[in-house]
Amino acid sequence: MILYNNQFIEREDAWIDIEDRGYQFGDGVYEVIRVYHGQCFAMDEHLDRLKRSAREIKLEWPVSRKELEENIRQLIQKNQLNNGIVYLQITRGPAKRTHQFPMQAKSVLTAYTSEMDRPHNNLQNGINTILADDIRWLRCDIKSLNLLGNVLAKEEAHHQQCYEAILHRQDIVTEGSSSNVFIVRNGKLYTHPANHFILNGITRRYVIRYAKEAKIEVIEKAVPIEEMMQADEVFITSTTSEISPVVKVDHNVIGEGRPGAVTTLLQKKFEEEISQLASRVS
Amino acid sequence: MILYNNQFIEREDAWIDIEDRGYQFGDGVYEVIRVYHGQCFAMDEHLDRLKRSAREIKLEWPVSRKELEENIRQLIQKNQLNNGIVYLQITRGPAKRTHQFPMQAKSVLTAYTSEMDRPHNNLQNGINTILADDIRWLRCDIKSLNLLGNVLAKEEAHHQQCYEAILHRQDIVTEGSSSNVFIVRNGKLYTHPANHFILNGITRRYVIRYAKEAKIEVIEKAVPIEEMMQADEVFITSTTSEISPVVKVDHNVIGEGRPGAVTTLLQKKFEEEISQLASRVS
Repeated sequence: MILYNNQFIEREDAWIDIEDRGYQFGDGVYEVIRVYHGQCFAMDEHLDRLKRSAREIKLEWPVSRKELEENIRQLIQKNQLNNGIVYLQITRGPAKRTHQFPMQAKSVLTAYTSEMDRPHNNLQNGINTILADDIRWLRCDIKSLNLLGNVLAKEEAHHQQCYEAILHRQDIVTEGSSSNVFIVRNGKLYTHPANHFILNGITRRYVIRYAKEAKIEVIEKAVPIEEMMQADEVFITSTTSEISPVVKVDHNVIGEGRPGAVTTLLQKKFEEEISQLASRVS
Repeated sequence: MILYNNQFIEREDAWIDIEDRGYQFGDGVYEVIRVYHGQCFAMDEHLDRLKRSAREIKLEWPVSRKELEENIRQLIQKNQLNNGIVYLQITRGPAKRTHQFPMQAKSVLTAYTSEMDRPHNNLQNGINTILADDIRWLRCDIKSLNLLGNVLAKEEAHHQQCYEAILHRQDIVTEGSSSNVFIVRNGKLYTHPANHFILNGITRRYVIRYAKEAKIEVIEKAVPIEEMMQADEVFITSTTSEISPVVKVDHNVIGEGRPGAVTTLLQKKFEEEISQLASRVS
């Protein structure tokens, strides 16, 4: 089943109009919510961010927040999803094509679930990455459907047998093509400030909280490539990648080429958080 | 009727899968071709550009070029279109959502026609415009479906009762939200070079040719806002706006606040070109 505005419909009945503005302009916003043990992880934060993204592009919210929360929970139950994701997007809907907002358009919400294992291998052994130019627009804080820059960078990473592309504007590291980037140097944690150049990741926020709880100094500051290359540890965060250690950037080995102590400590705190979800179920 | 890959289908039967990459990533390219007197204007140039855009994002071309040309002509006939446009887009098609290109995906082509009058009033009296920050990505030469930056700028222009937003990066004028920008100063014609910052418009190319034929010096050079504001004439070009004089930018009147001599001369050449299409029909 999928969710279409307020209705549950069969996947094969889920179709979009060719003049939906999502299809012609990428005129919409989205979220990916992780589901562990049949429970949404950080649903509130994801829906808050979706609301903010929608507001920033003046997109009308099609259903009440309470209804949406309830519908997402029902969707997970109906699809008997245990571990995976909920993908959720809202577009400005179908209208005769004009760049400016149409006089009349009704937003379209679609959501579906997908089974997905946790990235155990990456979490344990780390990932290889490449560097790529950040050619995206200047409102990366909006989680919009304009993802071609991200797509092309991720494709280049995969083409080079790597998991992620770490993006940079001139010499400054911004974020991954679908993740945030953290750097550990002399026991301090660095990451790009949450401004218009990056998406303020939900996992990013959890990691900053964990670090502060563990009395690790967190510095939200743009870091040059050179500093990242010489870091003790690098890791990426995202809803699906969780906290994945980076062991290589291009051909440069990071630290000792294996997950570092700070990364491992933060991963442990994240595991505890997930376990709490599990215990709430049982 | 609409064109769906190689098939003609009824508009109401034209539906897109919710996991079409065009809908989730804006992963596709498009063209708008002008139709005058039932004839495509500059179809070759538009399809060449579509092919280039597709190649730049490594998108598979779904049908043969010859077939596509023939199908476009048939679509115009079937819909009895006299004056209007053909809208045509190709996406990477439906696939399980991953940022990198999917292993298996079949491109989806959709095309439809729309009646549209020529912008007589704008051509004769000129348009008002606003200035807006160019926040788009750094591959504006690709005519992609990632148009949110353009949409937001155009919406702001309409909100201010203007027809177009003229975009600038720092102090440099790039192009309009859906047009190219030209400036006339001391009898010379200036426009931004066709690099990654602008779309190389088809009408732009015609205008450059007309100017050269009329022995007007054409300088493809990025122009600062200040120079545009003090220009003798400013105009925009696009497939649907043709050659539209700009009489105001923000609250600044351009030249004498009416279409200038060079603009009018270029418009006349364009009219002749369209008349030739008409004579070919009769």
